[in-house]
Amino acid sequence: MQIQGEMIIGARALRGQQGQLRALDPSTNAELEPAFGLAGAADVERACTLAAQAFDSYRETTLEQRALFLEAVAGAILEIGDALIERAMSETGLPKARLEGERGRTVGQLRLFSNFPRAFSVGGGDTASALAAGCPVVVKAHNAHLGTSELVGKAIQKAVAACGLHEGVFSMLIGEGYEIGHQLVSHAAIKAVGFTGSRQGGLALMRTAAQRAEPIPVYAEMSSINPVFLLPHALAAHGAKIAQGYADSLTMGAGQFCTNPGLVIGLAGELFASFADSAAEALRLKPASTMLTAGIHAAYQSGVTRLAGVDGVTAVAQGQDGGSACGARAAIYTCDAQTFLTTEALEDEIFGPCSLLVRCRDESEMRRVAEHVEGQLTVTVHATADDRALAATLLPALERKAGRILFNGFPTGVEVAHAMVHGGPFPSTSDSRTTSVGASAIDRFLRPVCYQDVPPGLLPASLLDENPLGLSRVVDGTLVVPKA
Amino acid sequence: MQIQGEMIIGARALRGQQGQLRALDPSTNAELEPAFGLAGAADVERACTLAAQAFDSYRETTLEQRALFLEAVAGAILEIGDALIERAMSETGLPKARLEGERGRTVGQLRLFSNFPRAFSVGGGDTASALAAGCPVVVKAHNAHLGTSELVGKAIQKAVAACGLHEGVFSMLIGEGYEIGHQLVSHAAIKAVGFTGSRQGGLALMRTAAQRAEPIPVYAEMSSINPVFLLPHALAAHGAKIAQGYADSLTMGAGQFCTNPGLVIGLAGELFASFADSAAEALRLKPASTMLTAGIHAAYQSGVTRLAGVDGVTAVAQGQDGGSACGARAAIYTCDAQTFLTTEALEDEIFGPCSLLVRCRDESEMRRVAEHVEGQLTVTVHATADDRALAATLLPALERKAGRILFNGFPTGVEVAHAMVHGGPFPSTSDSRTTSVGASAIDRFLRPVCYQDVPPGLLPASLLDENPLGLSRVVDGTLVVPKA
Repeated sequence: MQIQGEMIIGARALRGQQGQLRALDPSTNAELEPAFGLAGAADVERACTLAAQAFDSYRETTLEQRALFLEAVAGAILEIGDALIERAMSETGLPKARLEGERGRTVGQLRLFSNFPRAFSVGGGDTASALAAGCPVVVKAHNAHLGTSELVGKAIQKAVAACGLHEGVFSMLIGEGYEIGHQLVSHAAIKAVGFTGSRQGGLALMRTAAQRAEPIPVYAEMSSINPVFLLPHALAAHGAKIAQGYADSLTMGAGQFCTNPGLVIGLAGELFASFADSAAEALRLKPASTMLTAGIHAAYQSGVTRLAGVDGVTAVAQGQDGGSACGARAAIYTCDAQTFLTTEALEDEIFGPCSLLVRCRDESEMRRVAEHVEGQLTVTVHATADDRALAATLLPALERKAGRILFNGFPTGVEVAHAMVHGGPFPSTSDSRTTSVGASAIDRFLRPVCYQDVPPGLLPASLLDENPLGLSRVVDGTLVVPKA
Repeated sequence: MQIQGEMIIGARALRGQQGQLRALDPSTNAELEPAFGLAGAADVERACTLAAQAFDSYRETTLEQRALFLEAVAGAILEIGDALIERAMSETGLPKARLEGERGRTVGQLRLFSNFPRAFSVGGGDTASALAAGCPVVVKAHNAHLGTSELVGKAIQKAVAACGLHEGVFSMLIGEGYEIGHQLVSHAAIKAVGFTGSRQGGLALMRTAAQRAEPIPVYAEMSSINPVFLLPHALAAHGAKIAQGYADSLTMGAGQFCTNPGLVIGLAGELFASFADSAAEALRLKPASTMLTAGIHAAYQSGVTRLAGVDGVTAVAQGQDGGSACGARAAIYTCDAQTFLTTEALEDEIFGPCSLLVRCRDESEMRRVAEHVEGQLTVTVHATADDRALAATLLPALERKAGRILFNGFPTGVEVAHAMVHGGPFPSTSDSRTTSVGASAIDRFLRPVCYQDVPPGLLPASLLDENPLGLSRVVDGTLVVPKA
């Protein structure tokens, strides 16, 4: 499939007329062909209006119809074949295996969300969960991977047509980030927003949404440093193994995960010092790896430089240097808890393979650090049975701070699972009541409606007394499960 | 129990020092004793700090402990006895039977939310659902019923002490509305806000919450005119009966319900004219009734005057005049759909017993009205089987506009039931994803947390493999119901 530099507005594919943009290969910073046309206000208007027009017919599709559609999207993405992987490699600098994994995950999410009528099935992803909930979607393509976006967008467009759905069910616009985001979020037809990116970007969308005549929910995933608490018995039992796992997690995918372990907290002393030595040793072997864009790479470099310059912060180790244009050199720094507790900037996320070890004087100072940190997507505890008492005193704070609490693992690797919560208190997300991954992600695009004395002929099938969809339902307060 | 003019901050009851305020009897506008002291910033600080301190111990109470507490609150409210009803009659102008009903509903909500461990039980009310969810509560008392608030607040305070809970679980402050609301919603310890009142008041709280360093959810119930669609076969079959029900619903409680039927839509012609005649006849018999406050009464009067002055709007009938100082005279007006569709002010809620009949040229104009109205708590349809086709074409719009759709009834009377949704798209509420009445109200004060590989000794009881609480749970995507 030839990449045309086009965006998608309903059934049409077209080049925007408001200037143009090329994707870059981050390993060389070379421009990639073709140039992509940028959307103007009229394109935004058209995409949003089509979405509004599609809404009633799309939300009235049966769960089976939606399942078939999501399966068709998954099939169309697979059909693109190697062209998708090759373009994505050029645009992201990520290796083939990782991108094949990403494709598998995307397809898996779509297929798993199609596992209706159980309604709560596994899966995730903003587009997948919105489509599963019965909402048309207008996507703004990321400027770093325009070609990949076009290929996937056209696959979805193809599935919309193949399933005979209203063309407005899916559109994809290309444009400069802030302006088009603002136009989309301001549009009266848009009723909810999903976003993953910087804190600054997320806050801007939240402001726009709050200032509308009709305010709408924004699900923005913004900033998380994912504290990892290392308790002493765990360090004594297998500190070196934890250090290796930490270095692996920190550098995976050039550290470009929202769940990257950016903060490690331990008790000052021999055990934690020995952990730091092992981590340093492991880190020094890590090659530099290409980041997604030159902008992300520059932000990483300046974040590390800033961190290194903070009073009381010292370097522990660096990974290997060199490699491609946007190659990120991993880095670990350390400071004591007093420095951490009194230096606001140390809580800033540095997107990439950089992490800070915080040395606490005692358990009570460790608890203060737990109380002090902002909202997080994840917190991790390494503990053996002998650390149980200390872990129990940390948990109340950790439960207030994070969407996911994990023990004896690392936060990278967000499983698409029923119990997954990928979300957490501000600023990790703008709305801690929801998750962007896992079965419950569908809730972000649903709204309850009560039907009182509505005649059976006008009721949705899910509410009919005879329960034709075979759903488990709460009837007068009692859970009723249909016989198998 | 003697009313002292006090607010409640944790275990203390005290008179605020920032000026004073008296409740008024709306039937005479006479001041009621005693004077109540107003809270200052230090009182807000103290109440919020206590609430934060109470949070961890309170949220860790077992469901049974919370149930006992809610039962204790209900018991303590009943124990106040006639003093509560008498003070409430003086402060609200509402009759005894209505207030006894309100008390029954309050107590019922508390008791039904205490029906754990089924977790999703009936009930509602901002305080009840927040306490049931494990959240400490700081209430701002309504200045119109300060004495009633003190009596109920002290009952809750008593229950907190009787159950051995942290004193910060409940506080109640007294103060001028805007300033203290702003202080409370700005406070870092406050994590969610429930509000019922004016659109202006709700929007102010939403702005304050959005501007915090950490934005928080606001559940504000603001403004709804609750459209009632009268389809022709229903009018032909029993127009006069619907008219009587409408006049009753409109004037119940001096029209002071957020679900009051403020807008009635029919097809212009003999049937709708005859309905209007019957409604006028019924309305003329309705006595004036005392509104809750002089301010509400003045706003009602000026709203009716404004409506009467709109070009194209004509009077249909008025209720009886006279009565008490704050007596509201019911009123029905009418206009054609073109006027309604082109006059924004006709969508403003007039809080009180006033309603507008909108005459549509044809069914398509009726659908345009359905598409045109803002978000609503409720929409009502009167239809017989012969109206089915028209009703079916209205429903897609109505489902997008309202939290509750009801047939062949009236929207006043919000049952505390499992399936109740008392909420709807903006501006009826600030957050259409939730309800303030019914079992699901508890969701407004909960947040999901994922526990990954957390050792059993540190897991909440609800997540233990052996399921000691006997909950129905989704395990690996499959609903598992414990054997009875």
